Amino acid sequence: MRINLVNPNTTRSMTAKIAAAARAVAAPGTEIVAVQPDEGPPSIEGYLDEALSVPGLLAEIARGEREGVAGHVIACFDDTGLDAARVLARAPVVGIGEAAAHVASLVAGRFAVVTTLSRSVPALEHNLARYGLASRCARVRASDVPVLELEAPHSDARGRIGGEIAAAIRDDRAEAIVLGCAGMADLAGEFSAEFGVPVIEGVSAAVKLVEALAALRVVTSKAGAYAPSPRKAYSGPFRALVEA
Amino acid sequence: MRINLVNPNTTRSMTAKIAAAARAVAAPGTEIVAVQPDEGPPSIEGYLDEALSVPGLLAEIARGEREGVAGHVIACFDDTGLDAARVLARAPVVGIGEAAAHVASLVAGRFAVVTTLSRSVPALEHNLARYGLASRCARVRASDVPVLELEAPHSDARGRIGGEIAAAIRDDRAEAIVLGCAGMADLAGEFSAEFGVPVIEGVSAAVKLVEALAALRVVTSKAGAYAPSPRKAYSGPFRALVEA
Amino acid sequence: MRINLVNPNTTRSMTAKIAAAARAVAAPGTEIVAVQPDEGPPSIEGYLDEALSVPGLLAEIARGEREGVAGHVIACFDDTGLDAARVLARAPVVGIGEAAAHVASLVAGRFAVVTTLSRSVPALEHNLARYGLASRCARVRASDVPVLELEAPHSDARGRIGGEIAAAIRDDRAEAIVLGCAGMADLAGEFSAEFGVPVIEGVSAAVKLVEALAALRVVTSKAGAYAPSPRKAYSGPFRALVEA
Amino acid sequence: MRINLVNPNTTRSMTAKIAAAARAVAAPGTEIVAVQPDEGPPSIEGYLDEALSVPGLLAEIARGEREGVAGHVIACFDDTGLDAARVLARAPVVGIGEAAAHVASLVAGRFAVVTTLSRSVPALEHNLARYGLASRCARVRASDVPVLELEAPHSDARGRIGGEIAAAIRDDRAEAIVLGCAGMADLAGEFSAEFGVPVIEGVSAAVKLVEALAALRVVTSKAGAYAPSPRKAYSGPFRALVEA
Amino acid sequence: MRINLVNPNTTRSMTAKIAAAARAVAAPGTEIVAVQPDEGPPSIEGYLDEALSVPGLLAEIARGEREGVAGHVIACFDDTGLDAARVLARAPVVGIGEAAAHVASLVAGRFAVVTTLSRSVPALEHNLARYGLASRCARVRASDVPVLELEAPHSDARGRIGGEIAAAIRDDRAEAIVLGCAGMADLAGEFSAEFGVPVIEGVSAAVKLVEALAALRVVTSKAGAYAPSPRKAYSGPFRALVEA
Amino acid sequence: MRINLVNPNTTRSMTAKIAAAARAVAAPGTEIVAVQPDEGPPSIEGYLDEALSVPGLLAEIARGEREGVAGHVIACFDDTGLDAARVLARAPVVGIGEAAAHVASLVAGRFAVVTTLSRSVPALEHNLARYGLASRCARVRASDVPVLELEAPHSDARGRIGGEIAAAIRDDRAEAIVLGCAGMADLAGEFSAEFGVPVIEGVSAAVKLVEALAALRVVTSKAGAYAPSPRKAYSGPFRALVEA
Repeated sequence: MRINLVNPNTTRSMTAKIAAAARAVAAPGTEIVAVQPDEGPPSIEGYLDEALSVPGLLAEIARGEREGVAGHVIACFDDTGLDAARVLARAPVVGIGEAAAHVASLVAGRFAVVTTLSRSVPALEHNLARYGLASRCARVRASDVPVLELEAPHSDARGRIGGEIAAAIRDDRAEAIVLGCAGMADLAGEFSAEFGVPVIEGVSAAVKLVEALAALRVVTSKAGAYAPSPRKAYSGPFRALVEA
Repeated sequence: MRINLVNPNTTRSMTAKIAAAARAVAAPGTEIVAVQPDEGPPSIEGYLDEALSVPGLLAEIARGEREGVAGHVIACFDDTGLDAARVLARAPVVGIGEAAAHVASLVAGRFAVVTTLSRSVPALEHNLARYGLASRCARVRASDVPVLELEAPHSDARGRIGGEIAAAIRDDRAEAIVLGCAGMADLAGEFSAEFGVPVIEGVSAAVKLVEALAALRVVTSKAGAYAPSPRKAYSGPFRALVEA
Repeated sequence: MRINLVNPNTTRSMTAKIAAAARAVAAPGTEIVAVQPDEGPPSIEGYLDEALSVPGLLAEIARGEREGVAGHVIACFDDTGLDAARVLARAPVVGIGEAAAHVASLVAGRFAVVTTLSRSVPALEHNLARYGLASRCARVRASDVPVLELEAPHSDARGRIGGEIAAAIRDDRAEAIVLGCAGMADLAGEFSAEFGVPVIEGVSAAVKLVEALAALRVVTSKAGAYAPSPRKAYSGPFRALVEA
Repeated sequence: MRINLVNPNTTRSMTAKIAAAARAVAAPGTEIVAVQPDEGPPSIEGYLDEALSVPGLLAEIARGEREGVAGHVIACFDDTGLDAARVLARAPVVGIGEAAAHVASLVAGRFAVVTTLSRSVPALEHNLARYGLASRCARVRASDVPVLELEAPHSDARGRIGGEIAAAIRDDRAEAIVLGCAGMADLAGEFSAEFGVPVIEGVSAAVKLVEALAALRVVTSKAGAYAPSPRKAYSGPFRALVEA
Repeated sequence: MRINLVNPNTTRSMTAKIAAAARAVAAPGTEIVAVQPDEGPPSIEGYLDEALSVPGLLAEIARGEREGVAGHVIACFDDTGLDAARVLARAPVVGIGEAAAHVASLVAGRFAVVTTLSRSVPALEHNLARYGLASRCARVRASDVPVLELEAPHSDARGRIGGEIAAAIRDDRAEAIVLGCAGMADLAGEFSAEFGVPVIEGVSAAVKLVEALAALRVVTSKAGAYAPSPRKAYSGPFRALVEA
Repeated sequence: MRINLVNPNTTRSMTAKIAAAARAVAAPGTEIVAVQPDEGPPSIEGYLDEALSVPGLLAEIARGEREGVAGHVIACFDDTGLDAARVLARAPVVGIGEAAAHVASLVAGRFAVVTTLSRSVPALEHNLARYGLASRCARVRASDVPVLELEAPHSDARGRIGGEIAAAIRDDRAEAIVLGCAGMADLAGEFSAEFGVPVIEGVSAAVKLVEALAALRVVTSKAGAYAPSPRKAYSGPFRALVEA
């Protein structure tokens, strides 16, 4: 099976890191197609970046659908454009934020999220509320590490993130930790060993959930909010997207 | 004061109707600048249309900011792109969906929304939950009238919407009605007279709220989620938008 | 248009301060009629004061209705007697607590309230829950400044309130501040300048909302909980009130 | 022990009926002192009646406190003035609405309330939400029987109330029924026999809860919202009440 | 009347302490039958102990029903097996955890629970959420005192519990305290005197609530979730229990 | 990898059906070990059956742990004993109820559950509330088909279940259906084809989630509520279970 792994920002080094995390857990027969848009924000930090990365993301979702992939992963922790992507797709679409939260809910009563900038905290809280999992999340913590600093070689990002994990376990009664950025995908294993609780990152979680949905032959519902858009005359560059 | 009234879809007749509703209630010194994007969906019916209308909408918000408007109204009932617009703007930004819900909350304990297609109901419910006003809304009802049919001369849209209003009063214990589409802006007065309860439409409500915020000198908070995006190298057509 | 601005406590200096705040934002054609009851508590600090100020308040609402005002403002932050007032009135009735919370919700994702005594915090929390806006409020903080100390010339009230505002921004992730007492109406401007976030006080907010409702021709719903009381034989001093 | 049973409306026949219900369940050593105000509304149907009955109610609570009663019962199903009464009292104060809801929660997973007029439904819903028990209540149903009709000899009130009970069991999955008016106190036994589920009325429930609290030596908390009002110069008829 | 007081763990000294607390508040005509299972965990600290104490508890509930008791008390603060017991019983069944929470709700707007080990906190939080009373509980605090240490003569348990009570009043705005373990039944009186707020323990609370329910002739609903189990062929030791 | 699939009731034909559903989706290298207790209830219909099946279930979980399985599935839709099992296990434990709800949440905004008897509805609602997913569930519907009738050859169970599915899509706006009993595991495929929406059954869903968790090397958290029980002297048959 082929999984369409879309990094909605334009930073290729992050796509590579995400792809590696995906391939590390993919089942033998699973092929990971890792892409990112050519145009848009180089990282997604807040509502504006999020909105502006959606068209590029949707183009990649539409391409994946045409190619007949078994499922899609949206590889940004704020699950950028998830609902719109589901309107376009019949194959399952899983965001890495929701994937990590669902997985954490299966092994711990209560988890905490450690993300990058505090400006992203409200969006993550709203997502959890919408998914229904806000009551399972003790707190969304910001490490104040900008997304692209996670790509920098000599940053102290790891230390700051670890500090928030320690605080979440000690102060928030968190029983598991969710890493709140795709760029942290390489850190889950060592943090899990260091802190002795499940530390979950969303890219690998989403890949396994898409594999699971595909094996179950469960597809995106086309009744209600995710039904295909009514036919109408779009103008401009998105026309091709909708009419494809 | 000038208010930037943005219809996020491309249908000019709808912009005209919205502008008329806005001007009918605007204070003497208020100038309504009514615009719509050149490109994008001709109506917004569901998550995909919504996502694809955001870039065009944001360009109009950015233009309004550069021109120094006193405030912005997003004239689609799903409050398209509201959070992203607030990142771009310092002047207040009010969506017509939230405006109508806030106004209804001030004159009735419990209101119902009557919108167009059932595929839009979940998005409206999510918005209300996020605003905090879901507990004030008895039900979001769909009339199964497509948005553009509201522009058609001989449609029975009015009858179907009225039927849902009657049902909301009778079955949902609604004490006020919110009309859930910008295209219904011309119907509030007569429905209010017909049913004897407040019937609120969002365009006029949003205009008056923006005027109120401007008079109060209350601007969009720049602490937290609506702070300006961190500077970084966007690529593609949105670059100008962010760097403006 | 005339707005009936009712201070439900008996302290005339507070009425004067409230009236000044109201007139500072009122539109050119708006006349503010500022009154307070002759009898009752000199300030409203907790449930008992609140209950005992209601009859005097309602008498002023009834008078305003008879005089045909365009709307009423209840100028105490716990929105004293709001529901009962709406039963009496056909014109809109807006409490300053709800007004400030609604306004804050339009410019910030998350606000905090800074009020006077801690004994008032539960009532304010209950009001926010009822309005549906509790999820938008990070915390209701008490400054431990008694209401009437706000009228005293050499008090350090301002400093203590400012301390709580600083704490709310730093510790509660508040993006806007709501001042939780009518007696703080003169402080919003300077605190807003000092802290760089929207600081909202309810008297001015309520005046602008009543003006907005009046311009929209939206009145208090008479379907359901705010329908006029059934006719029956009241005894005692309230008889006139109901039978008016 | 003496229990101060206050009917907050002025209808003496209802006080007599309430007193009988209370005495029927009171323990051997319990004396029921049943009173009602001389002035105020003859029945409480909605927010206005409720507000105007509070001063008379509070005078009776204050009298009971001075007399050293073991506890107070507020015998109106909307728990009129409950919070204000708790500020005045050190002995426990129990409303019949909350009493019935707490009792129902101990013998059924899910109960329904059957009350008088639909205009009272929102107030009862708000009370349940505040008490925390809204999630236990399937629905608040109105029988459209005015309060005073319950005192009328040949009314069909009993039949209409029974119809709502049947509907609650059949349609709302109610496992117990709470009778939502003090004037229904005499109907619980026969409805319970007729419908085969617990049918609970609040007067007897409140009497037993006050007896329980008194035996446990548990008094109203004076920390926080129910602390005595700060001393200050009330004017008018309520002065004596507060300064007593 | 006879009340079947079941300690679901096997520690006889704890049963004796619980029985003493029950008898201290029981009405003159009430006989307390205090029992515990012969087999099972010696204390209940977490989900596993809880699950394994249920069969022994249910056998005692079934015995009490056969003997015609007026009601049952489950004397463990996590209300072990409460729902299953209600399926077996027609007489009322009250858990000490729910009893204490309901009682606290009648005398304080907001209470805190102080329990033993932190591993029990999630279960207590879930119970409160289910009862509907989570919104009344400021926080569930752990004192990190193991249950059986409460039976030890020279422990510093009392000091640690007192420290948490002080913190709850100071930091959580708790207006009343609920002691979260049957083994703390002897401490309520002195803590109440020491801290000046109501301190409630569940054993005495549950006894008084069962007496109240019995006097009201209110029994466990047999409509819905608590209806007797459908007849079917159980195998093994529980057969007798179900078929009795 | 080996998965320990535990049917908590004693009906072997149901175990066989469940095992078949599990094997139909298991990955090539996954071995399904399907067991049920020797003693206990033959089906789980309500709180009492549930409580009495837990000891037998836990013995099978403990056995699986000793054998080093990769994960456990609890194959009853009420997720019998899930929390207690997690205390015993280090490998992941997934209930089929939670599995189906999480899977449905990934492909539909809103799902409905169709279960067997109405007496089980409250327990399922409580589970969903605890998991956090109640807001995603439109309604839990009962088909009034007893569990064991699903094993009967000529029952009309399928028709009654289909009727509820149709009603959920039409009346509850359900976009996906969750089958609420392990005994319905063979019906998902045909119902999905018949109704055109995702129809999800929990056995296969849980197997794929356990495989996913195992591949992610995510284990049950041992911090907090699922930490191993403190050592202490259990008496009776459960001693071996805890001390193993």
